[in-house]
Amino acid sequence: MISVNPGHNEIRVFENDPDLIIKGGMIITMREGQNPIQEGEIFIKNGKITRIHASETESNSGYSHAEIINAKDAIIMPGLINAHTHTAMTLFRGLADDLPLKQWLFEKIFPAEARFLNPDTVYVGSLLGCLEMIASGTTSFIDGYFFQDATVRAAHESGLRALIAQGVIDFPAPGVDDPEKNLKVAKEFIERWRGFSDRIIPGIFCHSPLTCSKQTLKDAWEISQQFDLPLQIHLSETAGEVNEILKKIGKRPVHYLEEIGLMDDGLIAAHAVHLDDSEIECLKENGVRIVHLPESNMKLSSGVARILDMVKKEIPIGLGTDGCSSNNNLDLFQEMDTAAKLSKVFSLDPVALNAETVLRMTTTWGASVMGMGDQVGTLELGKKADIIVVDLRGPNLCPVYDPLSALVYTASGADVKDVIVDGKVLMKDRTFTTLDANEIMERVKRISKEIMI
Amino acid sequence: MISVNPGHNEIRVFENDPDLIIKGGMIITMREGQNPIQEGEIFIKNGKITRIHASETESNSGYSHAEIINAKDAIIMPGLINAHTHTAMTLFRGLADDLPLKQWLFEKIFPAEARFLNPDTVYVGSLLGCLEMIASGTTSFIDGYFFQDATVRAAHESGLRALIAQGVIDFPAPGVDDPEKNLKVAKEFIERWRGFSDRIIPGIFCHSPLTCSKQTLKDAWEISQQFDLPLQIHLSETAGEVNEILKKIGKRPVHYLEEIGLMDDGLIAAHAVHLDDSEIECLKENGVRIVHLPESNMKLSSGVARILDMVKKEIPIGLGTDGCSSNNNLDLFQEMDTAAKLSKVFSLDPVALNAETVLRMTTTWGASVMGMGDQVGTLELGKKADIIVVDLRGPNLCPVYDPLSALVYTASGADVKDVIVDGKVLMKDRTFTTLDANEIMERVKRISKEIMI
Repeated sequence: MISVNPGHNEIRVFENDPDLIIKGGMIITMREGQNPIQEGEIFIKNGKITRIHASETESNSGYSHAEIINAKDAIIMPGLINAHTHTAMTLFRGLADDLPLKQWLFEKIFPAEARFLNPDTVYVGSLLGCLEMIASGTTSFIDGYFFQDATVRAAHESGLRALIAQGVIDFPAPGVDDPEKNLKVAKEFIERWRGFSDRIIPGIFCHSPLTCSKQTLKDAWEISQQFDLPLQIHLSETAGEVNEILKKIGKRPVHYLEEIGLMDDGLIAAHAVHLDDSEIECLKENGVRIVHLPESNMKLSSGVARILDMVKKEIPIGLGTDGCSSNNNLDLFQEMDTAAKLSKVFSLDPVALNAETVLRMTTTWGASVMGMGDQVGTLELGKKADIIVVDLRGPNLCPVYDPLSALVYTASGADVKDVIVDGKVLMKDRTFTTLDANEIMERVKRISKEIMI
Repeated sequence: MISVNPGHNEIRVFENDPDLIIKGGMIITMREGQNPIQEGEIFIKNGKITRIHASETESNSGYSHAEIINAKDAIIMPGLINAHTHTAMTLFRGLADDLPLKQWLFEKIFPAEARFLNPDTVYVGSLLGCLEMIASGTTSFIDGYFFQDATVRAAHESGLRALIAQGVIDFPAPGVDDPEKNLKVAKEFIERWRGFSDRIIPGIFCHSPLTCSKQTLKDAWEISQQFDLPLQIHLSETAGEVNEILKKIGKRPVHYLEEIGLMDDGLIAAHAVHLDDSEIECLKENGVRIVHLPESNMKLSSGVARILDMVKKEIPIGLGTDGCSSNNNLDLFQEMDTAAKLSKVFSLDPVALNAETVLRMTTTWGASVMGMGDQVGTLELGKKADIIVVDLRGPNLCPVYDPLSALVYTASGADVKDVIVDGKVLMKDRTFTTLDANEIMERVKRISKEIMI
């Protein structure tokens, strides 16, 4: 018998029978210092984890009303957290690849967004993104885009957990023709969705320190503070952008944001590729949350973020896929593999960014970036039941000497078998339970035919 | 009606009815300059492609005896070629990750090889590798390792096509205790398997210019020339290795090999990471074939190969996964994605190494590296029927604006539905037809339990 949580955690917390049992798999809780449980069961009741125990300790034969997830020859682990994406951009997946950055953005992506985004297309694109995230083991995501009512609706229907932020940019944007109104739209978005669902947190996403004025940034910050919500921003993604801010303002982006009051643990900074030492120190001192997006940074040739330096300083770092027009998928398993390997070759150190560290980025650290470190990111009693089951029966996952290594360096999203969020099963044996995959894909294909013309 | 091969290629080459028809999918032939056929059929007879046509042009209702592969909502394309791997090393997948290079090799991999490799374990490990390659759309592979009779046996049973080379190293090696006998063993290996099967080519694999003496390299070269077979070698994988050769011999590795007569189109050089301009020029002038192994080079922090410079010079370049202890899977779809993205971020040019170029590495160019450019690598009449079908019904492959982009940047091996080699179906609807996956995995698990102790 393997003792999971010596002492108090072994007793059942709730008196009632579980309504869901995941049984027979290796349990990786991602709790600091806890070894995998070679074979165990997890009980779930009312969306929360009520018991975790090694299989030998108890039979579940008494819980005849519980739904059973069979995790034999599988790993049971926390669902992954995609800390930065633009979900509806699945619509533009593969529309414009292998192009120079400016041509990609100004001749392809921006015109496509201007022409084809509306509440309907964003809804359908977001549904597709949610499908893909469920299919690859993501249970929570942080999103920033436009027409975000539609993304809220899609995420809500999918059953996923999400921090969904309305995009703010000082240019005419999809759904916000008049940039003067961008903050008003964002504030109303927050007011509309705050408290709507336990799984959906609304927020603001400022496009970048270059595309938002100082006043816009300050006002967006104030609104976020007023509602006690984090503010997302694209930070120092490209060298060109850093140089432009330096030229315009005389400071590097982090110090500019510091000057105007945005350096704070309420800030979620995505990319953070081009930072100098003083900027990393500043991010650390102010508790800023970072999102690493290695595949997007590689594909758009933005550069390689100094992740090792940030990990050393214990800055909270999540991992994200970015939108599908710069990746081109939402598979966090492949992203973890790339994150680890890119750090190793970039630092010329094979020990750099090991498997456990990148798994932290998609679980415990990702939960902190989302502001939900006390609720998701590990499997432990009382936490929300956001859980995935990774099938080990494929030849690619044989043998397994080290399960963390198998998850990071070998598995892909396609190895995920079951997905549970808030105790609700969203995918069982690779069959979606909340969304109609065929219908969604047919709708996306119809939209894509118009876009292609 | 879409005209596939204007002129002579439209007629049926063989009079007999096809024994296999792949129908209803988008056909990507990988023939230079040929656009995808939006919906077409491929006829196969006696292992060869006998007809390729757009679906509208003909019904297959008359061919009632043919086996049918349904490729609706799928891409039909040439099977991928893994140009460098050590198949049996699936046994050590994940045994030793995130370690310093020397510790990884000398404390983990070499001891594990010495202790656990024998004809039985290499056979079972190779079977597992073949399973994984079939499952991820690889139809041909180039292998170098020890106890290679066992790998030949596994490859033969799997139905895959392979160039399988006996390892030569001037140290005691698995199955070759006395290094004095390494060339004798290799020569006998070639004699034993030459002509055995149309699908299996035997060969020699010299471990590296550092671990093989000048005499060994020259003798190995002579044997390869005698049998008109290519010689494989690990070339300039790490900076340390280049420096050691420089110190020992006074020349960089490529010029050292040139001096002793190995620079020739019969050489297949894997890795080729640390090259100066004169070495790249020398490789080009001598028609040397190169294998790029980006994920292995990243994971072991060896460095980034100057692939763009080599592509510019039209050096034949294949793509390989390397063995499973330095990757840790055999998925060429993920390898293509990484190859493209790594080149982009390393060159800071988002246009670098586009989707078509990396697809060439795993198809037409890979076929040239294998010495089979006239027989495999494209779908065209008279060529061997090495074909895969990639399922587009998953949410990750929706929508498809550009099929090459979808294959490289989005697909993973798990999206492969059917695999055909030499006209024989090795996987149909993801069910293996030649190998017993469960039995093989059970045997590997038993071996891995011993290794883990």
